[in-house]
Amino acid sequence: MSTLSGKRFTVAGGGPVGALLTILLARRGYEVRLFERRPDSRKTTIYEGKSINIALSDRGWHSLDSIGIDPALKDDAIPMYRRAIHGRDGELTYQPYGSDDDAIWSVSRGRINEQLLTLAQQERNVEIGFEHKLVDVDFESATASFLAGGEENLDVHADFLFGADGAHSKVRRLAHSLPRFSYSQTYMPQSYIELNIPANADGTHQIERNALHIWPRKDFMLIALPNKDGTFTCTLFLNFSGEPSFESLSDRTAIVRFFDENFPDAMTYLENPVDTFMEKTPAPLFLVNVFPWSFNDKVGLIGDAAHAIVPFFGQGMNCGFEDCAELNGLIAEHDHDWTRIFPAYERRRKPNADAIAELSKRNFIEMSELSGDPMFQLRKKIEANFHEVYPDLWTPLYSLVTFSPEVPYSTALKIGDIQNEIMDQIMRIPSIEQLWQDPQLINELYKLAARRMGELQ
Amino acid sequence: MSTLSGKRFTVAGGGPVGALLTILLARRGYEVRLFERRPDSRKTTIYEGKSINIALSDRGWHSLDSIGIDPALKDDAIPMYRRAIHGRDGELTYQPYGSDDDAIWSVSRGRINEQLLTLAQQERNVEIGFEHKLVDVDFESATASFLAGGEENLDVHADFLFGADGAHSKVRRLAHSLPRFSYSQTYMPQSYIELNIPANADGTHQIERNALHIWPRKDFMLIALPNKDGTFTCTLFLNFSGEPSFESLSDRTAIVRFFDENFPDAMTYLENPVDTFMEKTPAPLFLVNVFPWSFNDKVGLIGDAAHAIVPFFGQGMNCGFEDCAELNGLIAEHDHDWTRIFPAYERRRKPNADAIAELSKRNFIEMSELSGDPMFQLRKKIEANFHEVYPDLWTPLYSLVTFSPEVPYSTALKIGDIQNEIMDQIMRIPSIEQLWQDPQLINELYKLAARRMGELQ
Repeated sequence: MSTLSGKRFTVAGGGPVGALLTILLARRGYEVRLFERRPDSRKTTIYEGKSINIALSDRGWHSLDSIGIDPALKDDAIPMYRRAIHGRDGELTYQPYGSDDDAIWSVSRGRINEQLLTLAQQERNVEIGFEHKLVDVDFESATASFLAGGEENLDVHADFLFGADGAHSKVRRLAHSLPRFSYSQTYMPQSYIELNIPANADGTHQIERNALHIWPRKDFMLIALPNKDGTFTCTLFLNFSGEPSFESLSDRTAIVRFFDENFPDAMTYLENPVDTFMEKTPAPLFLVNVFPWSFNDKVGLIGDAAHAIVPFFGQGMNCGFEDCAELNGLIAEHDHDWTRIFPAYERRRKPNADAIAELSKRNFIEMSELSGDPMFQLRKKIEANFHEVYPDLWTPLYSLVTFSPEVPYSTALKIGDIQNEIMDQIMRIPSIEQLWQDPQLINELYKLAARRMGELQ
Repeated sequence: MSTLSGKRFTVAGGGPVGALLTILLARRGYEVRLFERRPDSRKTTIYEGKSINIALSDRGWHSLDSIGIDPALKDDAIPMYRRAIHGRDGELTYQPYGSDDDAIWSVSRGRINEQLLTLAQQERNVEIGFEHKLVDVDFESATASFLAGGEENLDVHADFLFGADGAHSKVRRLAHSLPRFSYSQTYMPQSYIELNIPANADGTHQIERNALHIWPRKDFMLIALPNKDGTFTCTLFLNFSGEPSFESLSDRTAIVRFFDENFPDAMTYLENPVDTFMEKTPAPLFLVNVFPWSFNDKVGLIGDAAHAIVPFFGQGMNCGFEDCAELNGLIAEHDHDWTRIFPAYERRRKPNADAIAELSKRNFIEMSELSGDPMFQLRKKIEANFHEVYPDLWTPLYSLVTFSPEVPYSTALKIGDIQNEIMDQIMRIPSIEQLWQDPQLINELYKLAARRMGELQ
């Protein structure tokens, strides 16, 4: 490590991924300067009214653990063991996420960000500058130019630079002009707004705390994730245009009817959903896909800056943390030789980022159509049964992605596609509703599955 | 038409598509101001050393015809009736492009551009400004800002604006910041340089004039298109990196060996290929895919600005001209109502642009592996036979794209995919090399094909 003295990194972007990256680089012996466009949320109230919570799952916790982050971070998270599906008639059904204690965790984005920033600041060789807006990057020299405090220009020289500056990454947009840089930014038909379910007077939750609530309505859906303070942050995903959509629902009467018809039970909990709907500008959902993720072995992209995805698998931050964990491993593996680390990093991560992007898109359909289709429920039951009888042969895709950090996303996608083919065949069996518990049939299906899964080897 | 008086269009980009668009808008009664970044090539020599020729086929001619362009334009084009395939050993084989007089046409990009600009200038209500660099666009008001002659700033107000400014379109890049605009720019592994085959002393062609020459070498290829002056413009397509590539071929000895081994017969014709290879910077190949193609019913994209593709099907300019022809039809159909024309235009053209983008990518493999695989040749022969015996049932994909302007690209792609499946099955028949002329087998294949093609209906 002694050869590293003086090697400097600039990290652009102080979100959860930028903060975690800063910690791991500092712990590997680098001098790190982290710059964030916004003020320090620990000293201001920039998150006010934006109580965003996100899902962390085993992949994220595993990544944090591998970088040596204090497991106490988990104390602030709320485990969600199952989906609570709200029907149009108000009827509730439940789907466990996995077996036994398998859970995904609702965490406050602001809170985990602050915790990681505090950990970063505790490192000896870290400096953090808030209210520094990135203006330009020299991709040859890894020099970054910032506008500090809205006026002062600052040129930051370093040996390397990482853009961890999120879905709207300035580093990435500056790279658009580099030769042979492929990029895409693709909008989904859906946009979203956030709504709120307040806590009970005594600070407890109005609806079940340890569940992710979904009101699936096929072309749109409402979801709710619990916060520690007894509230739920809800997100309404709805097409931007068409029927119904944010565009088509323009007058109060129509909006009231839309909520009353589709979310009757939620209307007793939601805080002014109609006013909020009318006041807020829906935020778009988009995917970013670019390559390469590094330039001149000097500048890299990480997290959403490299691969913004849609939130329907709750894997965005998990994937960004996994980027950090893999990078951490590669620094050791290639002994700080960044001419090998950068290529290995993008070669290893790109297929996994592509896979989780695809899986996340597909999961909108799974989430928003869940309750609409009894055959889909049956399909899930048969899969769960498979897993129970042959745990080594069949792990459902959701569990592969969420509870199996040792399985790369790209492998999960491949296995999932084969499982889908098999399940399609099974669901075409006449009277499968009655037959599926027949031991002999299950055995036949087992053989079929084993043969197909064998092709993966 | 009287209601149109005073309705103004700005067209950014004076390439072939911009010039053609200007003509059709003027003939529909609009006032059109066309601005081009470069000087007027008719008064300067900006094309010197850049004798680029491109392929026009029936789709392009048909589009020009529908806009009422003088068919005399075709007098300057050279028909190419077949591919001339040059083997590594210098052996020549031929593949006709279609039946009888079917040809694709080699035209000088500069020459056709100048002819269209001259036609545009003959329209009463057209103004053209050269050396006007587009700087900014207000997508709400269709106001464009140009830097004229390198210094003067000019704000151009209009009712509508079209970006016809090519693969690197500034209008499109400015649109990146608009809400919900999806865009991608994807680089191919190949780059290219242009080489030259000079004319004989008497101005005749050194190799066959009425053919498109290909030296297919699987991972790379050389092609040559004839010019009127007896020269050929050649293009070497080669991977940018890897082995062999523009990057890996860095010293003269290796480059000489590369040319001698791969293009021995061409070496007797080519003008200083080794020096040219060493001097020129290879140009990248990329695809552009964006949506929407119009903004606020005020600003549109057309041609390469909307859908830059790779050149392997020779359809780039054809597709751009077809954009113009369809737009021309839609202006009449929707009686100058641009709130209906823009949405109809992008809805109709986008699937076709996507299809020709996909077909063009695939055609690199067809072109560069043609001579390498005798089974591929056989496959083509069987397809040609099919077409001869059952002309209504089977038109080869190449002919659908190139000689069937009445078939949209997207339909051609769908038919082509089904044909591919059928041909894959046929080519797996044992001893197909001997069997394929057996009338009974052909009849069986006919039934198979008919059944599958029927699914398209």
